Parts: sequence; C-alpha cells; structure tokens
Amino acid sequence: MAKKTFVATLSPGDAVDDEFVLAEKTVLQKRDGHQYLNVVLADRSGQIKGVVWDNVRSIAAVAEAGDFIRITGSVSEYRGTPQLVIKTMTAVAADRVSPEDFLPATELDVDQLFERLVNLTGTFTTPWLARLLAAFWQDEAFVAAFKKAPAAKRMHHAYLGGLLVHCLSMAILADKLAAHYNGLDRDLLIAGAILHDVGKLREFDYATAIDYSDEGRLLSHIVIGLEMLDEKLRQIPDVPRDQANLLKHMIVSHHGEPAFGALEPPKTVEAVVLHYIDDLDSKINAVREFMAKEDPDQAWTSFHRLLGRHFYRGTPEATPSKA
Amino acid sequence: MAKKTFVATLSPGDAVDDEFVLAEKTVLQKRDGHQYLNVVLADRSGQIKGVVWDNVRSIAAVAEAGDFIRITGSVSEYRGTPQLVIKTMTAVAADRVSPEDFLPATELDVDQLFERLVNLTGTFTTPWLARLLAAFWQDEAFVAAFKKAPAAKRMHHAYLGGLLVHCLSMAILADKLAAHYNGLDRDLLIAGAILHDVGKLREFDYATAIDYSDEGRLLSHIVIGLEMLDEKLRQIPDVPRDQANLLKHMIVSHHGEPAFGALEPPKTVEAVVLHYIDDLDSKINAVREFMAKEDPDQAWTSFHRLLGRHFYRGTPEATPSKA
Amino acid sequence: MAKKTFVATLSPGDAVDDEFVLAEKTVLQKRDGHQYLNVVLADRSGQIKGVVWDNVRSIAAVAEAGDFIRITGSVSEYRGTPQLVIKTMTAVAADRVSPEDFLPATELDVDQLFERLVNLTGTFTTPWLARLLAAFWQDEAFVAAFKKAPAAKRMHHAYLGGLLVHCLSMAILADKLAAHYNGLDRDLLIAGAILHDVGKLREFDYATAIDYSDEGRLLSHIVIGLEMLDEKLRQIPDVPRDQANLLKHMIVSHHGEPAFGALEPPKTVEAVVLHYIDDLDSKINAVREFMAKEDPDQAWTSFHRLLGRHFYRGTPEATPSKA
Amino acid sequence: MAKKTFVATLSPGDAVDDEFVLAEKTVLQKRDGHQYLNVVLADRSGQIKGVVWDNVRSIAAVAEAGDFIRITGSVSEYRGTPQLVIKTMTAVAADRVSPEDFLPATELDVDQLFERLVNLTGTFTTPWLARLLAAFWQDEAFVAAFKKAPAAKRMHHAYLGGLLVHCLSMAILADKLAAHYNGLDRDLLIAGAILHDVGKLREFDYATAIDYSDEGRLLSHIVIGLEMLDEKLRQIPDVPRDQANLLKHMIVSHHGEPAFGALEPPKTVEAVVLHYIDDLDSKINAVREFMAKEDPDQAWTSFHRLLGRHFYRGTPEATPSKA
Amino acid sequence: MAKKTFVATLSPGDAVDDEFVLAEKTVLQKRDGHQYLNVVLADRSGQIKGVVWDNVRSIAAVAEAGDFIRITGSVSEYRGTPQLVIKTMTAVAADRVSPEDFLPATELDVDQLFERLVNLTGTFTTPWLARLLAAFWQDEAFVAAFKKAPAAKRMHHAYLGGLLVHCLSMAILADKLAAHYNGLDRDLLIAGAILHDVGKLREFDYATAIDYSDEGRLLSHIVIGLEMLDEKLRQIPDVPRDQANLLKHMIVSHHGEPAFGALEPPKTVEAVVLHYIDDLDSKINAVREFMAKEDPDQAWTSFHRLLGRHFYRGTPEATPSKA
Amino acid sequence: MAKKTFVATLSPGDAVDDEFVLAEKTVLQKRDGHQYLNVVLADRSGQIKGVVWDNVRSIAAVAEAGDFIRITGSVSEYRGTPQLVIKTMTAVAADRVSPEDFLPATELDVDQLFERLVNLTGTFTTPWLARLLAAFWQDEAFVAAFKKAPAAKRMHHAYLGGLLVHCLSMAILADKLAAHYNGLDRDLLIAGAILHDVGKLREFDYATAIDYSDEGRLLSHIVIGLEMLDEKLRQIPDVPRDQANLLKHMIVSHHGEPAFGALEPPKTVEAVVLHYIDDLDSKINAVREFMAKEDPDQAWTSFHRLLGRHFYRGTPEATPSKA
Repeated sequence: MAKKTFVATLSPGDAVDDEFVLAEKTVLQKRDGHQYLNVVLADRSGQIKGVVWDNVRSIAAVAEAGDFIRITGSVSEYRGTPQLVIKTMTAVAADRVSPEDFLPATELDVDQLFERLVNLTGTFTTPWLARLLAAFWQDEAFVAAFKKAPAAKRMHHAYLGGLLVHCLSMAILADKLAAHYNGLDRDLLIAGAILHDVGKLREFDYATAIDYSDEGRLLSHIVIGLEMLDEKLRQIPDVPRDQANLLKHMIVSHHGEPAFGALEPPKTVEAVVLHYIDDLDSKINAVREFMAKEDPDQAWTSFHRLLGRHFYRGTPEATPSKA
Repeated sequence: MAKKTFVATLSPGDAVDDEFVLAEKTVLQKRDGHQYLNVVLADRSGQIKGVVWDNVRSIAAVAEAGDFIRITGSVSEYRGTPQLVIKTMTAVAADRVSPEDFLPATELDVDQLFERLVNLTGTFTTPWLARLLAAFWQDEAFVAAFKKAPAAKRMHHAYLGGLLVHCLSMAILADKLAAHYNGLDRDLLIAGAILHDVGKLREFDYATAIDYSDEGRLLSHIVIGLEMLDEKLRQIPDVPRDQANLLKHMIVSHHGEPAFGALEPPKTVEAVVLHYIDDLDSKINAVREFMAKEDPDQAWTSFHRLLGRHFYRGTPEATPSKA
Repeated sequence: MAKKTFVATLSPGDAVDDEFVLAEKTVLQKRDGHQYLNVVLADRSGQIKGVVWDNVRSIAAVAEAGDFIRITGSVSEYRGTPQLVIKTMTAVAADRVSPEDFLPATELDVDQLFERLVNLTGTFTTPWLARLLAAFWQDEAFVAAFKKAPAAKRMHHAYLGGLLVHCLSMAILADKLAAHYNGLDRDLLIAGAILHDVGKLREFDYATAIDYSDEGRLLSHIVIGLEMLDEKLRQIPDVPRDQANLLKHMIVSHHGEPAFGALEPPKTVEAVVLHYIDDLDSKINAVREFMAKEDPDQAWTSFHRLLGRHFYRGTPEATPSKA
Repeated sequence: MAKKTFVATLSPGDAVDDEFVLAEKTVLQKRDGHQYLNVVLADRSGQIKGVVWDNVRSIAAVAEAGDFIRITGSVSEYRGTPQLVIKTMTAVAADRVSPEDFLPATELDVDQLFERLVNLTGTFTTPWLARLLAAFWQDEAFVAAFKKAPAAKRMHHAYLGGLLVHCLSMAILADKLAAHYNGLDRDLLIAGAILHDVGKLREFDYATAIDYSDEGRLLSHIVIGLEMLDEKLRQIPDVPRDQANLLKHMIVSHHGEPAFGALEPPKTVEAVVLHYIDDLDSKINAVREFMAKEDPDQAWTSFHRLLGRHFYRGTPEATPSKA
Repeated sequence: MAKKTFVATLSPGDAVDDEFVLAEKTVLQKRDGHQYLNVVLADRSGQIKGVVWDNVRSIAAVAEAGDFIRITGSVSEYRGTPQLVIKTMTAVAADRVSPEDFLPATELDVDQLFERLVNLTGTFTTPWLARLLAAFWQDEAFVAAFKKAPAAKRMHHAYLGGLLVHCLSMAILADKLAAHYNGLDRDLLIAGAILHDVGKLREFDYATAIDYSDEGRLLSHIVIGLEMLDEKLRQIPDVPRDQANLLKHMIVSHHGEPAFGALEPPKTVEAVVLHYIDDLDSKINAVREFMAKEDPDQAWTSFHRLLGRHFYRGTPEATPSKA
Repeated sequence: MAKKTFVATLSPGDAVDDEFVLAEKTVLQKRDGHQYLNVVLADRSGQIKGVVWDNVRSIAAVAEAGDFIRITGSVSEYRGTPQLVIKTMTAVAADRVSPEDFLPATELDVDQLFERLVNLTGTFTTPWLARLLAAFWQDEAFVAAFKKAPAAKRMHHAYLGGLLVHCLSMAILADKLAAHYNGLDRDLLIAGAILHDVGKLREFDYATAIDYSDEGRLLSHIVIGLEMLDEKLRQIPDVPRDQANLLKHMIVSHHGEPAFGALEPPKTVEAVVLHYIDDLDSKINAVREFMAKEDPDQAWTSFHRLLGRHFYRGTPEATPSKA
C-alpha cells in the first residue's frame, strides 16, 4: 500500500495510519511503576518521536529498531515538538514496502555513475593500483554497498548513493588537477579520491535508516577503511609496500588537521590536493543542498548553524544574464 | 660590473666587495656616546645584517634604505649568525645594476602569462564585468605593476611576477570548476580569481626588495584592493550595485575565516569556491617551493615551521613508473 | 489609532487586533500542494512568528516585508513558542502609525547629543580633520541617518539613536584619555571615536525594524565605513595621505584582533586606545542594559549567554551609601 | 666606586672589571669530573651569562645569588650570545654600591606619586573602605614596599616604582570613569584600582634584581594579594562581609578571562571597568616603552613578539601639528 | 505527610498537591500593569517552573526562596516545557518535611566514609600535616558541612555527601600512587586530595537545594578554600611556611590549566598527580552517573553534551564473563 | 676501542678522534660549484652537526645514514652552536662497537620487567584476551622489539626499553584501578595498557639512533598498532568481534581528544581510564626526567618549553622529614 503521510508534514492534530521505520525503541518506567514506550519513527522525510501509553509490553514486542511497522495514532505536541501518540503498531514485511519511501536517495543513476568510475580506473598505468581497484570492482558485495552508501548522516551527500556521487566528483576533479599541476601522481591521486572514504560502507548502517554503526562510532571510517584496504592489498601480489603506505597516508590524512580527525597532516603533494578537493566538494554540496531546501523567493537563507552564516542567493534581478 | 657574491653563501671569514640593496639602516649609540650603524643588506638570495663601527656619520649619509650600494668588508659572526663588518660604502646608480640580481623573479614569461589572462577575460559574457576587466587592462601603470608584484613576502609565490602566476593559475582553475559544478557564475568567479589579491600591488614594496609598505601594514591588501576596485567601478557606467557587491564580497571573504583575515565568511557559492582555489593554489605552491629548496637525495624535507610537518618526496624506487 | 498590544506580552489564547511591522514573509507549500504563509511580525518590544492558513494568495499580496500592517487573529503555540494564527491582514500607511511604537529608541534627546559632538569637533586644531568632520556634519542625509542608526542588532545600544549615544560617549572618553596620557593625537583619537562605526548607517536597515542590510552582510560595516570615509576624503583638498591612512587604520583595527574582525591589529597608540574605549563602552552598556531588564529584587541576573556569566547587582544592604 | 660598564653594552673582546649582582649561580660537572661554575650577572641594563673555569670551589664560596660582587674577566661568545669568562670574584657590601646602578627605576618622584594616591583615598565616603586604605597607608613596611615594587618582570612598568606608577594612573582613570558613567561605586572602583595587584609586593623579589619569588610562582599575585587584603580586613571592625567580597572579587577577576588568570570573570560593573582600565594602562605603557627603546628615525618599530605586530610611529611629517 | 509527586514525573494535565522547595521567586509586571509571579519549584528529582496569575501579592508573601512550601495547581506547558500553574501556596515548616525528599544524597554511609578518611590521616608522619588535618577534624561545624556538601551542582557527585565520596576516593588513589611512584610526598599528596575542594563547603548552598552561593560566584571555591586553610593554619604552631605554600599550591593548581581555573599550572610532582586523580575521579563518576540514568537495554547512551559523545555500554553478549 | 668523548661535552676548540653514529648525511653545493658535506653525528648523549669541506666525494661514500663511523676533526662554532669540522671518516663495523655507547637505555632489567608483564597477563580470565596476549608473547621477533623500543623520541621514556617501562607501569596502575572502581573489565583494561602503543615498535627506528620511520611519519603508531593487532587477531580462533572492537577502540582513543590524535574520544569507561593512566604516567615520567637533568642545588628547574612552566623541587630544608 502506497505511503501517503511523511513525518516532515505531520502537524499537531493530524490522525495517522501509515508505515514507518521503527528507528529507536526504549521502554521506560515512571516512578509510579507504570511502563511506557518511547519510539522514534522515520521515513525519507525525517524523524518524529512517538510514545505508547497503553499495552506497552505487547506493542514493544511487535518489532525491533530497524524494522518496518504500520502505526495508527495521532499527533500531539511535547516540549515544543510534534509527537505521535500511538494506539496500535503492527509489523510490516520488508518486501511489502517501497524502500524509496523510507530513505532519501540520489536521483542520479548509480549504475551510470559507477561505470564512469570504472572507466576512469581503466586508464591507470600504475600496475599495482590498476590491480587494486580491479580487486575492489570484482568484489560484488563491495560494489553493491558502494553504490548504496551515503557519504554522511547529515550536512552533505546524506542520502543513498551519496558516497558514490561524492567520490566520482572528486575523482574527476583529481584528474583535472593532475593535468593542471605538473608532477602529480595521477593514478595515486584518483585512487585516493575513490578510496579515501571507503570505510563509510561500514561506518554507517543504512538498511532502513542512516545512522552510525557500533563499529563506526568505536573505530571511525578512517580505521575501517584502512582495514578494508589492507584486506584487498593482501590479495594482490607484488604491491610495493612504500607505495601502499602513500595510499594509506591519503586515508589517514584526508581530514587535513588532527582537530578534524587527521591522524597525520597531509605530507605528500597528492595528499594535500586530496584534502582540498574533499573539503571543496563536501562544502559546495552542503551549501547547495542547504540552499535548495529554503524559500526560493528570499535573497538570504536562514542561518546555517554549523557553517555559522546566512547564504546569499541574490535577488531575481541580481541573477547574471549570460545571454 | 657583474655581481659575484650573494648573501646566502657568505660564511664567516669571507672578504666581500660587491653590490647590495641597503634594505635597512639604523644609527645607534652606545652608552659611552659613540655611534655605530646597523644595516641590513639584501640581494635575490636573501638578507644579511651588517655593522659599521668607524666613519659612521659619513657612511650613513651615503645612501637611504632601498638604495643600491657597493660595500667592502668581511664576514664575522654575531649572536650565532653571520654579520658583515663594513669598511666602506658607496652609492651605486640604479641604472648601473642588473635588477635580476637583487630580487628573485619568476622564470616564466610574464607577458605570455598576462596574455592568457586577457584572453580569458575576453570570453566574458557579463557586460559590466567585461568592461571592468577591460578598464584594468587599459590602465598601463596597473598592468606594469600587476606583471611585477609578488604574491607574498614569504611562503608562496614570493618573487617578482608571483602574483600574476598565482592569479592566472586560479583563473584557469575557476574556469574548470565553473564547468564541473553547474549553476556557478563563471564570469564572476574568474573575475574574483583575478582581482581577489589586487591590493598586493600596493601592500608590498618591491622596487629593490620585497617588504610591506606603510599602507600595506596599516590597511591590508583587502582594504587597498577594495579601494582600487572602487576607483575602477566609478569609471564604468551602469554597474549593477548589487552585482558589484558580490564581487567586493569575494575580496572581503577570500581568506575564509575571520581569524585568517576574512571580514565576512564566504556567503555565496562563488565566494566559497574562490576561497578553496586560493588556499589550494597557495598551499601547493608553498609545498613545492619548499621541497625544491631541499636536498633532492633525502626522502623527507626538513621541518616546515608554519605548516608544522616534514614533507615526503619518496625514495627513487618509490617514484611511480608511468611507462 | 494607538497601538495597544505588543508582541512581548502576547500569550497563548490572546485575541489580537493591532498594528505591526511585517518583518518577514515566506510562502511555503505542503506536500499535499496547499500553500501557507509564514510571517514574522515585529514592534518595539520584539518579534513573533505567525502563520496564515487560508486565503494565502490574497493575504500575501497585501504587503511586503518592511511594511506596516494591521492583523486580526489569535495566539497559539508551535514548537514551544507563541505563534500568531492570522485571520486577516490589511496594509497600513506609514504616515498613519506612531513610529516609536515599532522600534525601540533612546530616551535621550538626539539633537542635544549631536550638538555636543559638533561642539567637540569644533575644537579640532588639525586642519584636515576639522574639514573632514565639517564635511560630514554638512551632509544632511548623513546627519539624519547618524542620529537615527542603532549601534547593533542586539547586545548593546540596539535601538534608534544608539550609534550616536555610543559615539558621543566614546568621543568624550577619548578627550579624557588624550588629557591623561601625554603624546596622544587628540584630534585623531576623537575623530576615530566618532567615525569608527560609521559604516553601521548602511550595515543595518532600521526603517521599520533593525536588521542587517544585504550590503551589511556581504561587506561588513568596516568596509562600508571606509567607503563612506573615502567619499568624503575625495571632497576635501590637501588631505595628507599618510594621515588619512592613520584614520582609516583606526576603522580597520578597532575590533582589536583578527578573530573579532580586525583586519590588522591596532598599530598606533591611538588605535590601541580606540579599541579599548570601544570595547569598554560597548561592554558597560551591554551589561547595564541586561541588568535593567531583569528583576530588580534579585541579587543576581539570569545567565548572559554571550558573556557567559550571571551578573551581580548586590542586595539592597550592599548598596554603597554615599551620603 | 662608580660603576662604569653595563651588561647591555658588553661586546666580545671587552675586558671587564666592575660590580654586578650575582643573579644566579650553579655548579656543574663535566663528564671528565671537573667542575665549573655557571653564573648570571645583572645590573640595571640587563643580564649576561658568565662562566668560571678555574678555582671553582673557592670562587663559588664568595657569594650567593642576590649578592653584590666585583668581577674581573673578559667577554667571549658562547652559542651566539656574549658570555663573561670570569677570572676573579670578590664580595661587595650592599652599602658600598649605588642601588640605582643595579635595577631600573622610575624617573618620577615616588613620594609625590604616593601622596597623590593618599589624597585620592582621603576623599572616600564609604567608611569601611576609608578605614581599609588607611590601614594600608599606616603600615610602614607595606608603604615602603609599595613605593618600590615593579608591576612586572617584563612587558610593562618593569622597574622599581612601576607598580605605584601603574596603580596611580589606574586610580585616576577610575575616578574619571566613575564620573563618566553614572551608578558606579566610585570608592570601590578606586580601591580596586589601588589594590588589585597588591600581591605583586611579594610575587616578585626586587632587592637586587627583579624576578619571581618562590611564593609568587607557587601562588600567583592574585592569591597573595587576597591574603594581604584578608590580613588587613581582620584588623578593621565592622566590615560588611558582602562588600568585602565585592572588593575581593575585583582582585579575583581583574584579568578578565580564566585563560588569562581570572578565577571568575568580572561579574559587577565595577569589576568590568577595572579589568578594562588595567588592560588599557598596561598595554599603553607596554607599547610606549617598546617604542621608546627603538630607533627614533624609523617609522616602524621592530616586531613585538608578544603583541604580534610592528608599531607605527609615523614619519616626521606625519606628526600632528597642534599649533 | 509523605511527598508523593516529584517534578521529574510531572506531565501536562497532571493535578498537583504536594510539597516542594521554593527555589526562585520573581514578581514581574505586564505592560498592562498587572503583576504575576514566576517561581521555580524543586525537589530531589529536579526543578520545574511555575507561575501564579492571581492573588499575586498575598501568595508572594508566603515564602522566600529556599523555603519549603505546599502548592496546589496543575501542569500546563509553556514554550515547550511543562509549567505549573499555581492556585494556592502555603508555607511548610522545615521540621515537618523529610529532607531526603528534596535533595539527592549519596546512598553510602557518610559516617563510615568519614571514618576511613580520619583513619588515613591518622597514619601521617609529617607533624604539621597531622596537626592540620586534626584541626579540621576537631572543628565540628566543618565536619558536619564536609559530610553534607555536594562536589558539584551538575556533572559529577552532584548530591549531598558527594564531596566526601569524591575526596575519599581521591585520597585512597593518592595513597596507591604514592606507593607506585617513588619519591612522592605521601602525606602532602593525601592532604591535597582531601583539601583541594574544601572551598565547596561555602561555594555551594545546599540547605534546601544545590546552587552557588553569592560568595561562591564571586570568589570561587579555590579562593574560599585557601581562606579556610589559612584560618586553620593560623591556629597551628610551627607550620613551615614553604611547606604550607606547597599545600596551597595544590589548591591553586588542581584544575591543571589556566583556562580551566588553575591560577598556576601544577609545578610540583605532587600537584601534577593531584590534578590527574581529580580529573580521573570526576570523569569516571560523571560517565557512570550518566550511564546509570539511561535505558539499560540500549548499547549506546544518548549524546552527552559537555563530554561531546555517546558512551557505549555494550550489548549483553558483549559483557565479559569473568567466571 | 672504548668510546671516550661524547657529543654533549664537546666544546669549541676540542680535538676529536672517536666513534659516532652517522645520523644524517647531505651533500650540498655552493654557488661557486664546490660541494661540501653536512652531517649529523650522534651518540647516547645527543647529537652534533658536522661539516666536511675537503675530499667530499670520497668521504661521502664511506657510510650511509645509520652506520657507525670513526672521525677525526675539531670542534668549531657555527651560528651559535658547536660544529665538528671533520678531517677524516672511516666506517666501523657494527659488531666492533658497544651499542650502549650510542643510544640511551633504561637502567632497569628489561627481562625482569617483561616477566612481570607476562605474569600479569597470565592471570587473565577472559579466554580470547589470554590467547591474544599469548600470541604476542610467543612471537619472538615481537618480544625482542618490545623489550628494545623507546616510548618516544623526546619528552618521556625516550630511551631503549622505555616503551616496556611505560607499559608495565600502566598495566600495574590498570590493575589497581580495576580494583578501586567496581564494574571495570580488568582484563580489557590491562590488555589496553599493554597494547595501546604497540605501533611504536615500527613508528620509530632505533637501531643506531631514535627517529621516526617513514611508516611512522605517514601512518602514526595508532594505525600501525591496529595493523599489528589485526594480524594477531587473524591467528586466533573465536574472537568475539564486538569485543575486539572494544580493544581496538582503546588504541584509537587513548590520546583522549581529536586535537591530540584520538580518532574518536574514549567512549567506554575502560577507554576513559586508559587515557588518564597513559597521560599520568607519561607526564610524571617527563617531569621527573626533566628534573633529574637539572642542577640539584636549585629550588626551581629551568623553563620547560612544552609544559610551559618551571618545576619546583624545593629547598633542602623544604624536604619533608618522614622520620
């Protein structure tokens, strides 16, 4: 049955009868001994908190965090935000829902994007890097996850396919910069652009909602990515160890500074370039996605908390006429 | 007469008879009432301190800071650094020296670089920006200075012609990025790349040595550049004021953050992009110039104080074979 | 008709029929295709959000942001803050309202304050500075704006006339300090005190509400102030350029440190002093205005978020008896 | 016998036979077992390192750190700085030297300065504060030390009498500001100006050289000053405890921010004002003393490391003509 | 009468008739001239805001901040948080309530904890330290307060008895570390562990609610603790002054860095160790108390704002089996 | 032949004929085309720069960086520091020198230290951790390196065996704290203490001098340590993956904060404790090693640049008498 209501549009007073992901589930107890159930429901438009006051035990047994459910209830308000008061909850089989209703996804064709990436690595002239990327591309489980993973939980490319969109854009920029500045190792730079965030395949869970995995919170995508790279490197013969360390260094240093998560600052020209194109591509994307969500008739966006400013789109007259 | 000795190669014990720029000159007095003269001499290889113990008044009258001089004397050492003990000093007419001996300069052909820039702005489709750049290009004094100015006193592009080299590289990158990301105002971005540092023409003195001017120290190249831009804008009819503010904003914000000298953070997508390509081009240049000065047989450079790290060039075997 | 209700005193459940400034206006669309109108209404006591559910198109056409309007409706609550649900909206001509109802203003007589400032600059003995200030005082549009502009949107002197109050207080302090420390250039210091924030006349819009202008957000009051100063300097003959740079430097550096918006740190004794009296006068004013808003029976104010502390007014017994 | 040579003017090669303070003394041992003596000698012009190679034990027994001595020897150079190689050392009785040769001191008349301070506190109308200051003024040992103490080891007012110069200047400023801003507790503010740094009487040793005392390094002048204040408060009857805490708070908070040594930020208007006039008076003094040491013919000073900038004195023409 | 309702469990719609502490009381006035009363009510479970609309004067006269009261009313919601609308308020005598209902307290036996501390100081071999601690232990008012004081208002050990729990834990750790690292002054280290936070006895008010005292906000527990220590030191004969300064230094420096409230950084090995065990014991306690409040079935806690992370408790299977 | 001279005791004028490590070697060229050789020589007492002016090619061919050499020459001074002017250089076989002359080493018996560590892990009750540590202990190459590696290049435990000394001290502290705080996973905490720095075995080269390896500079000991741990984990059956992640998390987070190199902050209680004991043990060691190098007769050490303070050892009288 087609999903009709989305959490972003729920207002106090609305009655609800629709499918959601059960993102979080916590049984709590009042001081008087009665139990109640706090939940977070999600779909592709966002998240909403909910509460179950009655039949707590039987309803809590219906589903686990990550499952699809159908609920009935109504929207009230608690501490200034809308909250669902849930009457009934039933499990919904994963094969009965349209996945695209529950997680935002890129509108681009990920298979086409991926093919462009494969074509790019097909031009590599450094044997061990060509073999390495081939090993990744031949790993079907990897490729499936690489086409699906988001690049972030928030801020930029925070949707299914986002990691691929981001890495392809960076790989193309890497190629252009390798042509602009002489002396850069083009293959190494492109390989770094493709693999620098590869740990995000496991740093995030994105089966039914985008969130950090246990492993992601404990180890970070840097460490997970290095493990994934090491696993592939062990399968390839004759990898020059010092070269492999240069590639690992790009993963280690791509955040630029220790305070932002770089264990070492970039120490090769290629690592310096990689850091900039990563920062540039993430920031451009973050700003444009933020602008896209706001009222198109206003010259200024609202205040972006993390970036600490309003952004300017200009007035209609201000638009440059290129004709 | 051809200059034979350069300050970078002077060692304690050397006798000196050659031409230099008198970079600084200070008459000081000992407690016993005797005067002596402290000077700084410069040529394209660097600077050295010097002292005059005898005939202080007559020697001090020979030249002012910024003049060319010929000295005789010998190198001693004071507080751990080489110091010239100067016996005689005579003035040298500016037209008798080879300017290239006294200031480092790009090895590229600045006329060719400049022509590429003019060609690029020749493709502008935004009328007022086309007129603005034309106004700059028709100002002969401006063009002469623009071909000569350094981009910095230290760190990156710190040589005659350095500003042009830097701005051309950025303008080309701006063109590439305007093609890579859709929706960017190409003309505005390229104009920003060319004009963002234009205040450096007056922030620095670079007639006989590269140093900050009074105006540069009091106002910064940001403010000077805005004055220069305002002067040209007053000469052009029909400049849309809100558009002009977007160009000024790129000068105001190109350092990215207030702590690094941005009065406002970049608030348009074009200003965000400009900040990144400025930072990228400066940093790549700084790293490569630093590497170029160091022993080519060592895998690691010495420690770069400002960037806080050693850089890695790799061992000969580590060089990727592209064949 | 006299305004009776002010946004600061509206509580959920109140019915409203009164005049306000339409501070912001945004048409939004639900996923079901229906449009609604989000507005922000303002008067001298503050701002309140409002929403229009019906007749959206016709009501949206009534007025633009910045216009005076009369609305009827009632106060509800959304996400924890009061919100106006608006039934009707009609335009009100600007000449039919009492401006003092809509923007907070100093209770002091701005004409008297201004006269004191004119008297002070009348004592200048530096010819070009005397001519410069005279040029400003003879510019009627400037003087009108200078008497009306606020010094800030929040924090200190955030009301009509606030800039004049602040600049006069600083000019008097400048005069006192020029007497206290010998060797200070009194005229330069007082001129700096008067002109350091002059860009705020255009950084803010304060016709019907105090907010940043486009120009203010893109360029900052520092750059706008320098433009305004340059414009006047071009009208005066025989300005010594190095002296003018010292005055500009005071505008450039008055925030003290780059992280707080100083392009250069204060590099003259006068600029150092100006920075301190600016900081002192702003802070004293901020603290006292904050104290004045709080319960006079409490020894401590509530927590001041920006200044990071509670302030102490002391208990009645603690009040020093000066008799 | 009059001192003729001062450490600031010693150059390699000079022979020395004169009196100094033995500022530090350390017996060290080479790996071959031989002992040598490292010393630091001081006079009002600065400090110089020295070494004794022969007769180490007998020479080391001549005097302790802080004693006056006469040495013979010659100036050599070690690791880039001048160093005295000492041949002989004899003790000199303290009553045989001219104290002003050994420590820099204000050129102002400290008795006159002190009298102005006493006159100012004579106008107090708050009984307990009048009694408190009287108690300090009646403590002869305190007054003697207060007239002698420096305000710092370096940076500003770093000479005998410097603390009094600084406190008097601040007390006068406090008086002026209490007249400028209404509602300030004038007596409290002036008392804070006089007593805020009182712990420096014990934080520093300044008998024969200015250095930190053990107590100063372990406790800081804030804590020592509070102890000194507490001692006096115990002697005065009927001090209102909450009032006394406001005075203590001014000592506790006068550095403004925790990172600069304020245990609490200023939480009363008087404490806010005190912080600013302390910062202002210290900074003005630091800048002017720095300027005074530099070549008067140069427009710019050398780089001030702590304040992070060159200071501008302007060119002769730039001097404002007040006539 | 036993207290039945606690503020942490109040929800909009609840009727209330129970006892609370009147934590804050403020009479405010609407623009229409009517007064109303804002209050904060507290018990051991937390705080809630309340408002009185009618009979404001007579109800405001019933009690002062810090008194016990009984109220009737109902819970509504204002700006997103629950708020009590109070109908009636009556005073309740302090001897009629169960104190443990109003302030959280340790579940440990404070008399036993205190006895362990006394036993530990009974092993001191440094005479003056043994005498000093004895002087504290013989001061009955001190001991009563020391057993009752909290260690903080929030974050860690924020309950009655918390200071004693914290100091005993630290004293035991001090003892262990004095055994682990040789050369540490065991008695000094343990004394520092016990006395470092002694000023918190007066920094906080904790008669009916935990909050900062006036003195605490103006002077900080560091300064108050030094005053308390000085008072005891004056009662003990033959205290070696330099030794006492080492103990004071531990109070002065125990926060480690100026930015966190250390007037001086730790300069003795004992002060360095004290800083670490203070930080360790506070942080462990903070983390564990935070974990204890959260849903035990979840692997991760919610986000801890001050510590900037989620904490991991692991899944049931993850629990190490020690059997 | 026994080494007699050590670089720390060389003074200008000394003749030298002894063995050193050739720590660095760089051939440079003057502008006149002549080559010279810059070297750094090292032994256990430190490092000294040297220069070869003649026979540059043949001497440069004698040895590579890291080799033992014998040189003859004399000590001069360059830019304020001693410099060896080298006449002859001959290679020395590694088996002809006494290694302890060239690198500082702990005076403790590393075999005994290691045995204590093995005994401690022998008490583990968590099967997979017992197996993991056993796997490390059975790896002879690992154990040999673990007994030899330094914990740092400078600051603390910067000598052969230093890593073992540091890890054993931490493991014992971990054991004590697991007994002090209940609920800690003792085995996990001790394992973390032993393995947190294991990457330092490869981060440093310490065959003939302590310096960073290429791998160390590119990847950091965190990443190298995780690789080493992963290699051992692959050899052990039935490792619970979530448990292994908790151990890896301790390596990832032990620096505490991102700015200090923690990819994630400590998120388990054990990781929090590990961070503190690492910081405590490093700092105590750093302070004590610094104190040990200084004049024992002085109450205060010289200024410690990294820790930003002088340390106090107290005067002889200040030493607590424990008798």
